[in-house]
Amino acid sequence: MTTQATPRQPRQDRSRATRQRLLEAAIDCLASIGWAGTTVTVVAERAGVSRGAAQHHFRTREELVTAAVEYGSEVRRTRMRERLDTAPGRRPTTLEVVLMLGDMYTSPLFRAALQLWVAASSDDQLRASVVPLEARVGREAHRLTVEALGADESVPGVREAVQATLDLVRGLGLADLLTDDSARRDRLLRQWARTLDGILTPTP
Amino acid sequence: MTTQATPRQPRQDRSRATRQRLLEAAIDCLASIGWAGTTVTVVAERAGVSRGAAQHHFRTREELVTAAVEYGSEVRRTRMRERLDTAPGRRPTTLEVVLMLGDMYTSPLFRAALQLWVAASSDDQLRASVVPLEARVGREAHRLTVEALGADESVPGVREAVQATLDLVRGLGLADLLTDDSARRDRLLRQWARTLDGILTPTP
Repeated sequence: MTTQATPRQPRQDRSRATRQRLLEAAIDCLASIGWAGTTVTVVAERAGVSRGAAQHHFRTREELVTAAVEYGSEVRRTRMRERLDTAPGRRPTTLEVVLMLGDMYTSPLFRAALQLWVAASSDDQLRASVVPLEARVGREAHRLTVEALGADESVPGVREAVQATLDLVRGLGLADLLTDDSARRDRLLRQWARTLDGILTPTP
Repeated sequence: MTTQATPRQPRQDRSRATRQRLLEAAIDCLASIGWAGTTVTVVAERAGVSRGAAQHHFRTREELVTAAVEYGSEVRRTRMRERLDTAPGRRPTTLEVVLMLGDMYTSPLFRAALQLWVAASSDDQLRASVVPLEARVGREAHRLTVEALGADESVPGVREAVQATLDLVRGLGLADLLTDDSARRDRLLRQWARTLDGILTPTP
């Protein structure tokens, strides 16, 4: 086993790189041309991968797209953590956290995930795999937001306020779908950060 | 002209009734089977209208669906006004308004509109007709919410708080797409109503 590890490594690397290219191209495709146009063939072409190689990794559009949204959520989590770690020893302000969430929920990944959620809402088989994924991604986003805000969820109302923040940015993501809503979103999130601060650190 | 008005009326009524049946069936279809399955033929069948009669009213799926979302928004506006007028002389509480909005944004109409917005996000021609419709519907929802809350938008932060309420319920609508989110939504909106009350009527 050990003697085979070295020569096999490059092939595994190549396979992993191919898979990653496919997942990134799938997010791109979903966000720009939507669910109907995002087939394994179209994604393979965009990724510069042969159709056969693509189908070795993902047999169906559903498999590919679900894996892409899962992969994108992991990348997002890593990026969020990097942004939070840029100023070590300093906790980000509530405004910084809220604006970062606003960015995350207007990204191509949000648009891609939206395509998947909406497709799953009228496809029972797809829904069965998307529901646990959505729950995982949602829990993870909540956990990271609590950590970033340094929120104490044992204080009454704090848990709901963190949830409301995530539901709010999800709604803002939807509002940004057809037109550039960034100016309104910025005003609204600055106001919300002040309100949220008041809930997180109530005056005694 | 006047002499023809009476005999022509019934035919106009029938045509209006057919149109309305098609619009309601289109909302139903979109909400349950999604964009791809919602063709003029499928909607006509669900409405019990011949394909020819349906195509007399709507030549394309895009025309039918856009008209359906517009019609649904008018119905929603009327129903919201009815609910607000049920207790004359008494302004609804902030909680009542917020819960009503929560209901509205998890209705079949919201799901139908979501299908249309998402389809329009990757179809430039459809987007051109959906953007003004979305703007109209959004302005109307804002105006009605301000009125229902008796909100004074000249007070700093109030306008943003009303907007945030609508973005929040939009996000909650999305969270309800794949699973029943009503228990969490109820807790969250009760908390939100208290926060919103604090913004609408700040202690001096």
